[in-house]
Amino acid sequence: MSSPPVAPRPAYRRLSVEERHGQLIATAQRLFASHPPEDVSLDDVARAAGVSRPLVYRYFPGGKQQLYEAALGSAARDLELCFAVPEEGPLSERLARALDRYLAFVDSHGEGFTALLKGGSVVETARTSAIVDSVRRAAAQQVLVHMRVAAPGPDLHMALRTWITAVEAASLIWLDENKQRPASELRDWLVEHFVAVLMVTAGRDAQTAATLRAAAALEPAGGRVDTMVERTLAAMGPEAAD
Amino acid sequence: MSSPPVAPRPAYRRLSVEERHGQLIATAQRLFASHPPEDVSLDDVARAAGVSRPLVYRYFPGGKQQLYEAALGSAARDLELCFAVPEEGPLSERLARALDRYLAFVDSHGEGFTALLKGGSVVETARTSAIVDSVRRAAAQQVLVHMRVAAPGPDLHMALRTWITAVEAASLIWLDENKQRPASELRDWLVEHFVAVLMVTAGRDAQTAATLRAAAALEPAGGRVDTMVERTLAAMGPEAAD
Repeated sequence: MSSPPVAPRPAYRRLSVEERHGQLIATAQRLFASHPPEDVSLDDVARAAGVSRPLVYRYFPGGKQQLYEAALGSAARDLELCFAVPEEGPLSERLARALDRYLAFVDSHGEGFTALLKGGSVVETARTSAIVDSVRRAAAQQVLVHMRVAAPGPDLHMALRTWITAVEAASLIWLDENKQRPASELRDWLVEHFVAVLMVTAGRDAQTAATLRAAAALEPAGGRVDTMVERTLAAMGPEAAD
Repeated sequence: MSSPPVAPRPAYRRLSVEERHGQLIATAQRLFASHPPEDVSLDDVARAAGVSRPLVYRYFPGGKQQLYEAALGSAARDLELCFAVPEEGPLSERLARALDRYLAFVDSHGEGFTALLKGGSVVETARTSAIVDSVRRAAAQQVLVHMRVAAPGPDLHMALRTWITAVEAASLIWLDENKQRPASELRDWLVEHFVAVLMVTAGRDAQTAATLRAAAALEPAGGRVDTMVERTLAAMGPEAAD
């Protein structure tokens, strides 16, 4: 990195150990969010935090890799908070709210998000993969809480996990396209993607069918799901070709 | 690895340079298919191929990493061949055939497939990620050929790429579950997953809608797609709860 992305702090501020630790992680997070990990050095972090390089090493003896993992762990906790939306209203609206927050996170952590999920990154290890996987599990768990499913069977589990992977892939494509489509459009499509995958799964699995019928009962007439079904039928109908 | 997975060849056989190269790659592929990459050593490959370690190094001066990448490149070409099914009959049946071959590949390359796609593997680099990504692109391209789409717009492209990611995720879950469900069941669900995602995309995108209507015209009455729609409607209907 040629220049620091934020102006160096004018003077060294005395912070408590906890505060300094948090400040270094927050600084690292900001840098990793906007630059690929290989372009961020420990010197960059020290400079942006307004401290010396030895001080950074005192907090993170494992150097850049340790700092990266700490920043990732902190981002993972932020991300998990995205999924905690109030348990009220139609499920499709709750999912849309969680996706809004998730896409805002993706938007602001673009570079780091891409490097992490694309694979082959210099900082990727079994530990970073485990952190990412724990976020996926938390996301799946949160969806199950909203659907009031305590023990998902293999079909519902697979539908949910593959949808979460599809959300990640869609986010990467969105970033790759320089976010040309509005986040709200992507969000709406991802909600419909979820409903569609659950619907075909419901055709094969009683638990998914029961869960989906319960969810359907919460959807208002003319709401997201109704609109989706109408639009899809209209697009597929013979008269649509005219 | 404590013991060689195949008996050592009794005697050194003289092969041409091309043959030896191919033999070493095939041997490496077999070992990487059944063991995580960190458990396969160059000695294992030499022993299984019935040659000396220096001979392996003569062909692969970059050692294990180079051999791994060569084995992966070769597996990638095999995998791309899976997708080339005849351009005749309903599209859902063609997709089912390609998925049959793909799942057979996953079945026989379990360990290597998992290590590669799970991320954080010791042998994962930007180069291995690029090879995996080229397979994904080839898969997407092959689907587009069958759908007779020369230039996919962003919506169709995103639907297709996210589905391919979902196929990978489902395969990993399948392996993780020790392949408890029959491959044919997973295949049928993945075909329906594809149709469902394209259907909701069709509700938002004219190109996807036109492509899907053309595909629907090739589906026989009572075929896969009809059955899927009927089963889904039955599962979602109010009487299904009884």
